[in-house]
Amino acid sequence: MTASLIDTITPSFLSGQWISPAEDVRAKEVLDASTGEVVARVSAEGLDIAGAIDYARTVGQANLRELTIHQRAGIIKQLAAHLNDHKEELYELAAKAGATGRDNGVDVDGGITTMFVFSSKARRELPNSTVIIDGNTEILSRDGSFLGTHVYTTMTGAAVQINAFNFPVWGMLEKFAPAFIAGMPSVVKPATPTGYITQACVRIMLESGLLPEGSLQLISGSAHDLLDHLDYRDHVAFTGSARTAATLRSHDAVRLRGLRFTAEADSLNAAILGADVTPETPEFDIYVKAVFNEVTAKAGQKCTAVRRAIVPAPLVDAVAEALAQRLNEKVTAGDPRAEGTTMGPLVSTEQARDVAEATQKLIDAGGRVITGGAATDGAFFQPTVLVFDDADTDAVHSVEAFGPVVSVIGYTDTADAVRLAARGEGSLVASVITHDNEIAGEIGRGIAVHHGRLHFLDRDDARTSTGHGSPLPHLVHGGPGRAGGGEELGGVRAIKHYMQRTALQGTPNHLTAITGQWYRGADVNRVTRAEVTAGTAEHPFRKDGTSLRIGDQFASDPREVTIEEILDFAETTGDKFYAHVDEEAAQANPFFPARVAHGYLLVSWAAGLFVSPEPGPVLANYGLENLRFVKPVTYGDTVRIELTAKRITPRVTDNYAEVCWDAALFNQDDELVATYDVLTMNEQVSETYVNWGK
Amino acid sequence: MTASLIDTITPSFLSGQWISPAEDVRAKEVLDASTGEVVARVSAEGLDIAGAIDYARTVGQANLRELTIHQRAGIIKQLAAHLNDHKEELYELAAKAGATGRDNGVDVDGGITTMFVFSSKARRELPNSTVIIDGNTEILSRDGSFLGTHVYTTMTGAAVQINAFNFPVWGMLEKFAPAFIAGMPSVVKPATPTGYITQACVRIMLESGLLPEGSLQLISGSAHDLLDHLDYRDHVAFTGSARTAATLRSHDAVRLRGLRFTAEADSLNAAILGADVTPETPEFDIYVKAVFNEVTAKAGQKCTAVRRAIVPAPLVDAVAEALAQRLNEKVTAGDPRAEGTTMGPLVSTEQARDVAEATQKLIDAGGRVITGGAATDGAFFQPTVLVFDDADTDAVHSVEAFGPVVSVIGYTDTADAVRLAARGEGSLVASVITHDNEIAGEIGRGIAVHHGRLHFLDRDDARTSTGHGSPLPHLVHGGPGRAGGGEELGGVRAIKHYMQRTALQGTPNHLTAITGQWYRGADVNRVTRAEVTAGTAEHPFRKDGTSLRIGDQFASDPREVTIEEILDFAETTGDKFYAHVDEEAAQANPFFPARVAHGYLLVSWAAGLFVSPEPGPVLANYGLENLRFVKPVTYGDTVRIELTAKRITPRVTDNYAEVCWDAALFNQDDELVATYDVLTMNEQVSETYVNWGK
Repeated sequence: MTASLIDTITPSFLSGQWISPAEDVRAKEVLDASTGEVVARVSAEGLDIAGAIDYARTVGQANLRELTIHQRAGIIKQLAAHLNDHKEELYELAAKAGATGRDNGVDVDGGITTMFVFSSKARRELPNSTVIIDGNTEILSRDGSFLGTHVYTTMTGAAVQINAFNFPVWGMLEKFAPAFIAGMPSVVKPATPTGYITQACVRIMLESGLLPEGSLQLISGSAHDLLDHLDYRDHVAFTGSARTAATLRSHDAVRLRGLRFTAEADSLNAAILGADVTPETPEFDIYVKAVFNEVTAKAGQKCTAVRRAIVPAPLVDAVAEALAQRLNEKVTAGDPRAEGTTMGPLVSTEQARDVAEATQKLIDAGGRVITGGAATDGAFFQPTVLVFDDADTDAVHSVEAFGPVVSVIGYTDTADAVRLAARGEGSLVASVITHDNEIAGEIGRGIAVHHGRLHFLDRDDARTSTGHGSPLPHLVHGGPGRAGGGEELGGVRAIKHYMQRTALQGTPNHLTAITGQWYRGADVNRVTRAEVTAGTAEHPFRKDGTSLRIGDQFASDPREVTIEEILDFAETTGDKFYAHVDEEAAQANPFFPARVAHGYLLVSWAAGLFVSPEPGPVLANYGLENLRFVKPVTYGDTVRIELTAKRITPRVTDNYAEVCWDAALFNQDDELVATYDVLTMNEQVSETYVNWGK
Repeated sequence: MTASLIDTITPSFLSGQWISPAEDVRAKEVLDASTGEVVARVSAEGLDIAGAIDYARTVGQANLRELTIHQRAGIIKQLAAHLNDHKEELYELAAKAGATGRDNGVDVDGGITTMFVFSSKARRELPNSTVIIDGNTEILSRDGSFLGTHVYTTMTGAAVQINAFNFPVWGMLEKFAPAFIAGMPSVVKPATPTGYITQACVRIMLESGLLPEGSLQLISGSAHDLLDHLDYRDHVAFTGSARTAATLRSHDAVRLRGLRFTAEADSLNAAILGADVTPETPEFDIYVKAVFNEVTAKAGQKCTAVRRAIVPAPLVDAVAEALAQRLNEKVTAGDPRAEGTTMGPLVSTEQARDVAEATQKLIDAGGRVITGGAATDGAFFQPTVLVFDDADTDAVHSVEAFGPVVSVIGYTDTADAVRLAARGEGSLVASVITHDNEIAGEIGRGIAVHHGRLHFLDRDDARTSTGHGSPLPHLVHGGPGRAGGGEELGGVRAIKHYMQRTALQGTPNHLTAITGQWYRGADVNRVTRAEVTAGTAEHPFRKDGTSLRIGDQFASDPREVTIEEILDFAETTGDKFYAHVDEEAAQANPFFPARVAHGYLLVSWAAGLFVSPEPGPVLANYGLENLRFVKPVTYGDTVRIELTAKRITPRVTDNYAEVCWDAALFNQDDELVATYDVLTMNEQVSETYVNWGK
């Protein structure tokens, strides 16, 4: 495959088929970044993009809609494992684009890890369903007959993903995984200089046989008419230059047809050194190492790389020199395939020329070259440190050299550091290196609004930090203003970006029917203790995760509360809070009529009232949520509980289900006295999980 | 004031001053919708918009930043009460624009209610702070030294609000209230035909003396250069036509400068009648009444009004006739100030002409006129029912007559109803009238993605429903595609739209410093039971809401768990689940080593271990959150608890604080066995609340 790349045009995968334009079309040649040899030819001429979008909206949508969120997440996990078994091929290809082993760790392994994390978070944090409930239930009428809630459901079009050249694998996978789990078919368009790596990755994924038909398509080459075919049903996630983002944003699909468009553009990310730091404190070295990593990783071709080092004015020279020294000592630039190389070339000679031009602009604006400053040979560029005596030089905050180049500027006080950071007019990420909590608070609260992510370092987390430049699947990636205004990743937030949030209003039965979660007031299948004892009905705890249904309800007998039992409970637990044991003091409290039962006594009794003690499908009560003591219970009162299956989450990778039970505790007047959710783990006699195994 | 409107140009309130253009500039005359008399003259000539934006970003921002979210919400509550005392003036003015008493109930009273709800929700659901934490804590290193979380902080610019003519009061207040609570100063630009009503409302608000300087400005008239002055720090919330939205979206401020822009445009909202309904079931009348309300309220000039009645094909004629009959019987069109008027004119003769043109387009496309169909006199338009024999007629799904006009079409089966609803290409809201849960589920899951809100009606909620056409402050308003793609309201979601979400990474101390919430692993002020007993330290429960600090921690003594106590607890509570009482069965369970202590026994004991029993600042333990039993506890184990003040929420309208305590229960090996949040209500010796009273 690798060898043939030179002869054939990098194929696309559209409407279920690998397609290459005819050999005689005009195609762009892509060269090896180190050697200049031709490694790929790229053209999108004649590809049927309209057909591909239609295929995604029909075949892709239909196949994904048949699966639940957990089932899709199960496939992502298996795909990640498959890619992990085949990543060597991607390493080899990526070396041609200048990627070192460390760079592949970020791009290839980072992409695979991102899939694992999304898969795991989706299965832990989202329902095993196709509808996600958002936020609380709103009770819109006094009698509870009219409720409101919000749900997310999956958009019905194509998820188009336009990626940048610098992360041909991670860039695709971090967008593909959440779109897939959300149930949207992806159409991936990688950047030309490294599209052959993405193509190989797509081929490996397809070869796994795990992907439902239509769920992943690939456009190799520039498809200028791509947006012409899209509308409000579709989603475009773009990573690249602010200029291209602006062009796409002006397209009628966005302006008039409601296409959802999100952009992640480069930005002038800062690393701020706290005013508490001196060359003698550990944070000084931590800072220099962090900036060094950002200058050299991917030879600075990262949208998250540090471009501005903002340090206390008296430390400008010390920082610049320490940084230059470390760069001179530790960087061995060269072909990544050569022994000892620690930094590769830029992706192309064009890219080296762009970086040289931007660097010259910075120098012309007053940047003093401490080290580096120019291209060397072909696509290679020197690691470069510039110092600006005027921290407010416009170019520092607006000219981005997309390579191994950093500008060092000084600030007068913490407020000035905040002001200078904000001059980037919106960035993806800033690091703040300080061991002073007050400084961390002031800078953090001051600059958060201008950033998508803030990364704080000191002696306590320098070793455990995942680094300034690494977007994590758990945390949002993207930033306001210059950074594009978009948002990706962020755990399950990323999945919701491919869904529509809709408010629902209706009766408890209506909401139950749509969401698949039981709402208080909706129909129940009620079983009483008397019926269970008489053997005429089955306790819901006797049903396994497969036969249990939402709305299955157990209604307990009542139990009277005596003062002796309250005092006993105080004695055995040690909880002799005055409201339980001192009649006079209890009555003086604004909330209590007399000595009251402990809240924990009530929930303990409730468990006794609803329990089905013999071994059975309920394996454990592993937690409890949203407990509120609504009304005090005093001696002479009686309590009873209604426990109703509210939410059932069958696992796809284990043989059990998580069940959430609505618990409502009433007094003798049928007033609600306490309400909470009981969480149990139930055996599941089902084969659902078998198909999506470990 | 009212009389002088005719002579002077409606003033603007900019940079702290009321300003009118000179009397001799070209101004647009606004006429009384019923009588044709001049009621206002409007021009924005010569206004210093750039200065106003700068004033918002500086003075407005500085003043709002001094207040917490709860303090701002307190002001909104007082403002709402003030408006409520002065609403008669607004009723009188609105009558000139054609609003009936019922219409004012929606616009004026609806706007005031929206403020009350936002105030209340912000104080109940958000921290009394300026930073809102979003989602869970992510533990990013095994040792807990490197954590991640997300926060919302307030954008630093102006919240520009461009409103439509139909809701001059509600339209402003529903945008202003969340922006204000978020801490963003508003610049309001109402539509020319009803701007004089908005102007009066702004004047009443300013006269209250409650508004911090710079927090509210008003542009009366068209300010064509408004967006020229905005960038990524600012926010534009637009309500109006899709065409204007597209123009604004193409502005460089949006394309290039990262201006946050959200649009709410009109849409072809549907009301779907379920296939279970017949003329004999109650839902038939419910449906007819709901559509009738939408045709007549505000004379159909509502972005949420029903334009498409989608009913089972055999019921098309029955529905159309029932609707026409009700309209003919119940509608008395006229001057809202005249006795007996039930429907007013459209806002202007221009608007009546637009509606007549759109209605004619519908008729030309095949719409049979069942009743109405034309303008009558001046700004008056007849309530109109059209029937289309071809449900797929393009015009039905794309031509909006923004007046009292509805089209009735028929569907073949539920899937067809879903398909037809989706032909609106994105709507604000749809109603579904059905008493069949399966039909509700199928339609709901099918059309949610095309809508911002779904409203379900049947015999059980017809009387308690707040209606199809009323966006509620609790629920999101806005929709995809044709509806503009924006989102407003939705409770505290609306407030977050004026903030930036940022990921934070750092040590527990870093995150604590920025968020004001304590993270496990951050510094503590630890007090042990021994110290409390010896009188050498104060139990944190002895501190009131003002002196308590996050990080204040109580560490209990250990307590040994015996089998006798487990069996006793089983006996007294009745919870004889086998895992607690049957050694053999417990060991057979995959999770338990032997008979284990009840989870509820552990939390009951924990309360006994941490309690400070005498009367004091802690008034009540009102709830518990996020309880997880992490590791089983068996007899022979010992347990101890660390309780740490995690979050303190002082109330601004009552003299107490809500305190959230992190509870961590450990065994004899310092392994975590249970973790949860304890919620207490603490007295607060503070004057913070006095300024923002009831």
